[in-house]
Amino acid sequence: MLLREKNAIDEIVNAVSRKNILTTKEELIPYMKDASYIKGEMPLAVCLPKNSEEIAKIMHICNKNKINVTARSAGTSLTGSSVESVHGIIISTMNLSKIIDINTSSRYAVCEPGVRIDILNEELKKYNFFYPPDPASSRASTIGGSLSTNAGGLRAVRYGATKEWVLGLEAVLPTGEIIKTGEYTLKRSAGYDLTALFIGSEGTLGIITKAILKIEPLPEATGKIIGFYGDIISVGKSMDLIKSKGITPIIAEFMDRGTIESIKKNMGIKVPESTNYLLMIDLDAPPEALERKISAAKEIMEKYAENIIVIRDRDKMDQIYSARKGAYSALLEQRENNRQLIVIGDVIVPSSELAESLTEIDQCVKNDGLKATLFGHIGDGNIHANIFMDNTKEGRTRMEKLQMDIAKVAIKHNGSVSAEHGIGTEKNKLLYEEYKERNSLYSLEIMKLIKKAFDPNNILNRGKIFYEPD
Amino acid sequence: MLLREKNAIDEIVNAVSRKNILTTKEELIPYMKDASYIKGEMPLAVCLPKNSEEIAKIMHICNKNKINVTARSAGTSLTGSSVESVHGIIISTMNLSKIIDINTSSRYAVCEPGVRIDILNEELKKYNFFYPPDPASSRASTIGGSLSTNAGGLRAVRYGATKEWVLGLEAVLPTGEIIKTGEYTLKRSAGYDLTALFIGSEGTLGIITKAILKIEPLPEATGKIIGFYGDIISVGKSMDLIKSKGITPIIAEFMDRGTIESIKKNMGIKVPESTNYLLMIDLDAPPEALERKISAAKEIMEKYAENIIVIRDRDKMDQIYSARKGAYSALLEQRENNRQLIVIGDVIVPSSELAESLTEIDQCVKNDGLKATLFGHIGDGNIHANIFMDNTKEGRTRMEKLQMDIAKVAIKHNGSVSAEHGIGTEKNKLLYEEYKERNSLYSLEIMKLIKKAFDPNNILNRGKIFYEPD
Repeated sequence: MLLREKNAIDEIVNAVSRKNILTTKEELIPYMKDASYIKGEMPLAVCLPKNSEEIAKIMHICNKNKINVTARSAGTSLTGSSVESVHGIIISTMNLSKIIDINTSSRYAVCEPGVRIDILNEELKKYNFFYPPDPASSRASTIGGSLSTNAGGLRAVRYGATKEWVLGLEAVLPTGEIIKTGEYTLKRSAGYDLTALFIGSEGTLGIITKAILKIEPLPEATGKIIGFYGDIISVGKSMDLIKSKGITPIIAEFMDRGTIESIKKNMGIKVPESTNYLLMIDLDAPPEALERKISAAKEIMEKYAENIIVIRDRDKMDQIYSARKGAYSALLEQRENNRQLIVIGDVIVPSSELAESLTEIDQCVKNDGLKATLFGHIGDGNIHANIFMDNTKEGRTRMEKLQMDIAKVAIKHNGSVSAEHGIGTEKNKLLYEEYKERNSLYSLEIMKLIKKAFDPNNILNRGKIFYEPD
Repeated sequence: MLLREKNAIDEIVNAVSRKNILTTKEELIPYMKDASYIKGEMPLAVCLPKNSEEIAKIMHICNKNKINVTARSAGTSLTGSSVESVHGIIISTMNLSKIIDINTSSRYAVCEPGVRIDILNEELKKYNFFYPPDPASSRASTIGGSLSTNAGGLRAVRYGATKEWVLGLEAVLPTGEIIKTGEYTLKRSAGYDLTALFIGSEGTLGIITKAILKIEPLPEATGKIIGFYGDIISVGKSMDLIKSKGITPIIAEFMDRGTIESIKKNMGIKVPESTNYLLMIDLDAPPEALERKISAAKEIMEKYAENIIVIRDRDKMDQIYSARKGAYSALLEQRENNRQLIVIGDVIVPSSELAESLTEIDQCVKNDGLKATLFGHIGDGNIHANIFMDNTKEGRTRMEKLQMDIAKVAIKHNGSVSAEHGIGTEKNKLLYEEYKERNSLYSLEIMKLIKKAFDPNNILNRGKIFYEPD
C-alpha cells in the first residue's frame, strides 16, 4: 500500500466508524468477485457506511487523495461492474437498507439502495401493490444495483425496464456533493433529467443513497399458456401476432431445448420429445375477462405450436416462474467440469426481429464450435445466449469472438449489445462496436464529457462502460 | 445586422436552399411569439431545413461564427421556450414531418419532429394503437416540441409523461455532429441514457431530427364518472381512495368553479349551483369488467360528492374531453379586456397532497388579490393555476409574486415548479428556488456542465432553463 493510500484509509477510519471498514485479506477477498466470471482487484479497503453523510466524507477524502472508488451493493452483476477494475477502495451500500416510506395513493415507495427487490415487494404486497422490475436475481439483488444497471427482468415486456420506475434520487457524487434529482411526483419537466442519467450508469457518476420508486397495483387475475414448438420461426410468428393484436402479456419467455433440459424438473411439466422451443406467456386481466384473453392468445399459438397447455393454478404458475428465474443457476450443472464457466449474454432486438436473429445466432454458435443454450424475454426481444467457456486464455478468446458475433447480429437487427445487464468491463468493446456501426461514436464522447462533469478526477468505477481502442 | 451575422446568413443560404430561409420582417414577426405571454427577439433569419444533414450544416456555420440558434417546432410553448431570448437565428423543424415507420409487434413508431401528435394518433388508430402522451395542445403541438418539454397531458395519470414513451433519437448537436441515442428496442442498458437527457431539455442540447416512440394498444371499453363537489378536500379524498384501492383511471381531472363556468357550455352538461369543484374520471377495462370498475370508483366518490353522473356514450365522452382540452382557450373569454393576459401555471405535487396544496394555493391567490382559476390533472397531482395578468410592469410583478408563492406551496409538499410545460424563460427563478429549497443547487451546476459538453460555445437556446442570480 502506498503512503498516500494508507493515509487516506486512516483518514476514512477517523471520519467513519472503524467497525464499518474492512481491511484484512480474508475480509477483502469476497469483494474480488461478483456474479460474473470476471475477477477484480483486491481492494485497499471495503467501507460499509451507514448513511449518505458518511459516504460523502469518504468520497471527499478519496477525491482529494485521488483514490479510486468502486460502488457495490449485492454483487450480482453479470458484467463485472461490481468488482474493482483498478486498485482502490470499495463502498458497499448494503448498510443502507431501509424502506423509508410507502404511499399507495401517490404511488411511490422510498428506499435506500441496499434494499433487496423481493423484500420491497413483500412489503408492497401487504397493500396489493408491487414494484414491477424483476431481474431473475431479485431475491439477492438490490434497488441500488438494479437502478445502476437499468435492470429489466421477466415483466419488462409489459412494464418496461427500471428506468420507467424511478421518480427521484439522492446521490453522493465523487466530489463529495450530495444532490437530489427528481421529486415524489409522477411527472416533472424541470431541467435535465439527472434521475434518468443515473439509471444504467453503473455507479460511474455517483452513489445512489435514496430512491423514490413508482409502484403499481398488483394484476387482478392471471393465467399462463405454454406452447411447445418444433422451430423458433413459429415461436416468433406467434409472439408477433399476439402483440400486433394488442395483447400485452405480463411475461413472455422463450427457451431452447438445452434450457428446457436444465429446468424441466424444477418446472414440473412434461415436455414432448419433439419440442425444440417453449413459448411461455403470462396474461393478466380482470377475472371476468381472463378466459377470453387466454382464448385469444391460445388461438394464435395453436396455429404454430405442436402442443399447448394452459395453467391457471397460482402455485403451479409460481413454481414455473421460480424455475425460469433459476435457469442460469441450473445451467451450471450442465458444465463438463468445475473449471468451465458460463458467460451469460444479453443482446436485444425489436421483438419482431427475434426469430430471425435467433436463427442467425444459432448459426454463429455452430460456426464458432462452442456450446451455448438460449433463453430470454421474447416479449421485449431480449436474448440470453449462455456460452460454456473453458477458463483458459484460448477459451476466453473463443468466447469473446462468439459474443462479438452475436452482438453484430443484434446490431444488424436494430438492437443493442446490452438489454439489462449493463456493460461493466465485459462489454465495452461491444458497446463501442454498436456506436461505431450506428455511425455515432460521438455519443460515447459526449458520455465521457458527462462522466467528467460528475467526476473530474475520474475516481469512480473506472474502467466500466468505456473502451479506449488502440 | 453585424457583418459577421450577414456573412453567416449568406453562408447558410448557400448551404441550404434559399426558399427555406425566411429573412424579411413580415416573415420573421410571427416567430417572435409562441403560445405564452412572453415576447421574443426578432430573429436574424428563420431556417426551415428539410433534413438532419441541412440542420447539421446550419449548426456548423452558426457554431463557427458564434451565432445563437433557437429551436422551434409548432410554437405552442407556454413558457417562452420557442422564442428567442437572445439575438440569433431560428431553426424550425416543421419541414421534417414524416411518419417513417409503424411496427405494432415491436410496439414502436418512428417519426420526424414536425409530426403533430394528433396526426400520429390518427395514423396509429388504423392499427388499434396509440401514442399516449396527450398535451391539451395535441392538435397543434408536435413530437419535437413535446419531447423537448417532456409533455404530460390528461392521460399521464395512467401512462406517465413523454419520457416514458421514447426509445431512441437522432439529434443534431450545436457542434454540427449528428448522433443517435437509444434503439428500436423496449429496453437497453448500454451507457448513459442520452435519450432521456434530451427529453425535457427544451432544445438546449441539440435539435431532435428523428424519434423512435413506444406505442400502446388502445383501451378496450371506457366510461366516465363526473362528481360534483362542494369543496376540494372531498375531491382529494375521493381521488386518494380510488388510487389507494388500486384503481388507475386513464384520465382524472379536477376543475374549480371559474373553469366550470368557462367550459360547461362546451361540455354540454348541467352543473348544480352548489358545485364548487368537478372531479372527472375516465376508466377503462375489458368490456366484461367495466361496470364493476365503474361501480367501485362511483361507490368511493358517493361518500364525498354532492352528486354523480356516469357517462358511457363515446361521443359525449369525446365532447367533454375536447371541452376540457380547450379550457385554456375558453378562459381567454373571461378576460376583462384584450390587453389582459392569462398566465397558465404548472406546478405538481404528489397526488395525495393535492387537496391540501390547492387550499393553500387558493389562499395565495386571495392574499395576492389577483384573479385565477384552477384546473388540472388531479390523478398525477398537476395543478394549473391560470392567473389573469394586467399587461403592465406592475401587473407582471404581481403575477410573478403569485407564481413564486404557488411554487413554494408545491415545493413544500414535495412537488415541483413545473410538471409538463418546462421552464423556458418563464420559470428559471422558480427552478432555482426548487433546488435551493432542496439544498441541491449543485444539481443545476451539473446541468450547466452537461450543457457545456453538448454546446461548448453556448449557442443553442440560450437563456432557457438556467437562471443566474445576482
